[in-house]
Amino acid sequence: MKDIVIERLDERGVTIESMAELVFELQKQYLDITMEEAVENVEAVLMKREVQNAILTGIEIDLLAEKGLIREPILKIIQNDESLYGIDEILALSITNVYGSIGFTNFGYLDKIKPGVIGKLDKIGKTTGKVHTFLDDLISGIVAAACGRVAHSHGDD
Amino acid sequence: MKDIVIERLDERGVTIESMAELVFELQKQYLDITMEEAVENVEAVLMKREVQNAILTGIEIDLLAEKGLIREPILKIIQNDESLYGIDEILALSITNVYGSIGFTNFGYLDKIKPGVIGKLDKIGKTTGKVHTFLDDLISGIVAAACGRVAHSHGDD
Amino acid sequence: MKDIVIERLDERGVTIESMAELVFELQKQYLDITMEEAVENVEAVLMKREVQNAILTGIEIDLLAEKGLIREPILKIIQNDESLYGIDEILALSITNVYGSIGFTNFGYLDKIKPGVIGKLDKIGKTTGKVHTFLDDLISGIVAAACGRVAHSHGDD
Amino acid sequence: MKDIVIERLDERGVTIESMAELVFELQKQYLDITMEEAVENVEAVLMKREVQNAILTGIEIDLLAEKGLIREPILKIIQNDESLYGIDEILALSITNVYGSIGFTNFGYLDKIKPGVIGKLDKIGKTTGKVHTFLDDLISGIVAAACGRVAHSHGDD
Repeated sequence: MKDIVIERLDERGVTIESMAELVFELQKQYLDITMEEAVENVEAVLMKREVQNAILTGIEIDLLAEKGLIREPILKIIQNDESLYGIDEILALSITNVYGSIGFTNFGYLDKIKPGVIGKLDKIGKTTGKVHTFLDDLISGIVAAACGRVAHSHGDD
Repeated sequence: MKDIVIERLDERGVTIESMAELVFELQKQYLDITMEEAVENVEAVLMKREVQNAILTGIEIDLLAEKGLIREPILKIIQNDESLYGIDEILALSITNVYGSIGFTNFGYLDKIKPGVIGKLDKIGKTTGKVHTFLDDLISGIVAAACGRVAHSHGDD
Repeated sequence: MKDIVIERLDERGVTIESMAELVFELQKQYLDITMEEAVENVEAVLMKREVQNAILTGIEIDLLAEKGLIREPILKIIQNDESLYGIDEILALSITNVYGSIGFTNFGYLDKIKPGVIGKLDKIGKTTGKVHTFLDDLISGIVAAACGRVAHSHGDD
Repeated sequence: MKDIVIERLDERGVTIESMAELVFELQKQYLDITMEEAVENVEAVLMKREVQNAILTGIEIDLLAEKGLIREPILKIIQNDESLYGIDEILALSITNVYGSIGFTNFGYLDKIKPGVIGKLDKIGKTTGKVHTFLDDLISGIVAAACGRVAHSHGDD
């Protein structure tokens, strides 16, 4: 299933490298980490079934909202990424959670600052017909989980 | 938005009374509770925006899976309510959570035992073309949250 | 750290076998599982750092409450395992979460039914000077997580 | 119980105003908010029993760790606020959760940036005998929950 997940992310404009760059940027200040290690950790997160289910479900919701196949009033709420709609955060946190609560801080930080690909997705979602309501949060969740995994692996040294 | 939520639940075969009966059954052994109070507490849960978003989103996913408008591999996973797919539980727990962690125990119990309307929905979902993968968990979440609200209100006496 | 965790659980009257029995009982109806496999899965859960932190922290709180070293009003609340105190559930759910949301249902069921060692701990906590407010929930969390791990491993076959 | 909570926070160097300032700073860019409204929202968060339990429990753990009354290996882990120890985040998130998942982003941001009183507590915890491992996260959780409450109240206008 991992290949489909990577393919779907790619369709939506997200590469493993673009996520690994954020892992690298967040961790380099604390740990001696390489981009190669960052890529490995993002890929390990994408191997988890719980993560795959969250990504595939969230991307479908974004896509169905783009096509207008979701009924009101939830359709506009999702299309407009309304701040009081928290289901996207909930799905993303189920990803972050996979490596424990230490990922929550990075999730929130990424979701607030929106660096790199996260900000790019958010901007496209807000300025075009594309809907990235779930996707930008999912990416924050994947990157935060990968950071948690990196921290665990170094902590276990 | 509450009226739309009640209408959508009704469309899918769930009445406020059917949820209130489960709240009454779960709480009567601990507290002096009436059906009227159970109904009030279910309605109070349905007033919460977080709850409304989870219900409306989950029902749409069930419906879109019924219509085959979600792509594989997630389509079959949702249609078959596969045990390793946990996104339905995640949405339901965001409802339960609204009155704190004390609701989690009732959520799990309801999801396991599937009494009343929950079992009815589960059976229909497993034996007909209808998809209730999210709905039965959402109902467990609503009932568990209402039980938590009842416990808080009596505890605050 | 795993040895200390097992030792502390043993001090408090909980063996790996007593937890594995509950995993076996819960899973045998769905899967072809042996007691040996149940033991392996409980041990795998106890290897996780997040789990170890939750167990060691929860046991310390129970112990400090037994000794009266926690201040009021939280002291009596913990000593009496008051139903509106949900911090014990929160710690337990962080354990269950380690193998994803599919564990939540079993957690709630175990916490409600209190089979085997869970009921034994609960009874001792309610009838003696011993405090098991956190421990019984932690055990439900460990067993539920082990069930989730079993389900994942069979699902991946 | 609210008075005891405020008193205990005060003992540990945290005033309602110091938390309200952070709510004001985070929300003023999005909403027309006054310091008075920020104070009201922090106080409303502190009225919730779930929040009170998390605060009183977390402060006790910090205090008992200061006094060396918690056993190793968890004692040093808590005293040193080790990054792989996530129980403090878990307690804090149970506070943030009280107004739904929309608070998670602010929680993570606050926990990363550590503005105002949060940074002050963190620094004291890292440079003196005082232990603020739980407290600084609890404050991030309270402020994030208050921001969520503000957003809901304005959203409901």
